[in-house]
Amino acid sequence: MSECVFCLIVAGAAPAHRVFEDDTVCAFLDIRPIARGHTLVIPKSHATDLSGLDAETGAELFRVGHRIARAVQGPAFAADGANLLINDGKAAFQTVGHVHLHVLPRTHGDKFRFASGLVLRRSHEPERVAAAIRSGLAALDTAATDPDTDTG
Amino acid sequence: MSECVFCLIVAGAAPAHRVFEDDTVCAFLDIRPIARGHTLVIPKSHATDLSGLDAETGAELFRVGHRIARAVQGPAFAADGANLLINDGKAAFQTVGHVHLHVLPRTHGDKFRFASGLVLRRSHEPERVAAAIRSGLAALDTAATDPDTDTG
Repeated sequence: MSECVFCLIVAGAAPAHRVFEDDTVCAFLDIRPIARGHTLVIPKSHATDLSGLDAETGAELFRVGHRIARAVQGPAFAADGANLLINDGKAAFQTVGHVHLHVLPRTHGDKFRFASGLVLRRSHEPERVAAAIRSGLAALDTAATDPDTDTG
Repeated sequence: MSECVFCLIVAGAAPAHRVFEDDTVCAFLDIRPIARGHTLVIPKSHATDLSGLDAETGAELFRVGHRIARAVQGPAFAADGANLLINDGKAAFQTVGHVHLHVLPRTHGDKFRFASGLVLRRSHEPERVAAAIRSGLAALDTAATDPDTDTG
């Protein structure tokens, strides 16, 4: 366990810019983002790949990824779209041996920036980026509890 | 509704090679596969994008995608890995306006074939491919109900 960097993040023993966590999963900024706001959602209990992940933890992983994808498309972050991606196994380009769901905010016309992000993968202003995503998630909560708000 | 090709597939009014369905979601082979066994999992009720998809339907979409990803890595299909991908919004390369989760079986050393698949996207032997995925799913069911089987 202690050799897995994502388990260290869950335990608070390695630093990360967290955007969300609950009993089952934890979400934080990718340290080498392909795009601004590139977030990883991981199960708190170690699972190397999808064959070792129970179905309900997988469902919660996706629920949280779904919310983050919606949050980054709200006013606080203003992305125009998002990719949700799991690479399961080395053959599928999985590089860290702990299941992780990528949430990649996208903007219209970002193809070139996205392609260069694959090469450069530099983090800029992670505190501000994480705060914007947390605001987007909070706005979803407000919308869900306010009957006058159209959650569209 | 009738203009959405995925709604037509759900209704049985357009052809598709189905690999799985339940009350909430339906899974079938992509007609223009990037890789052998490229499968789409969709909600049966129309949702254009993730902002219009309820959380529990999303969770079921992922549960089924997770099972298919495991199934294609079993003996019946023998992939070495899989990518699970949702493109949410045109900015993220969504091309059909009905939410769909891609399950892309991968094999070691398939980078070149995968890249050419992005361009060619031809379907070969879809009946045989769909049958192999269905066998993989059935094997997961058998493993889950047989206490002597290690589901690892």
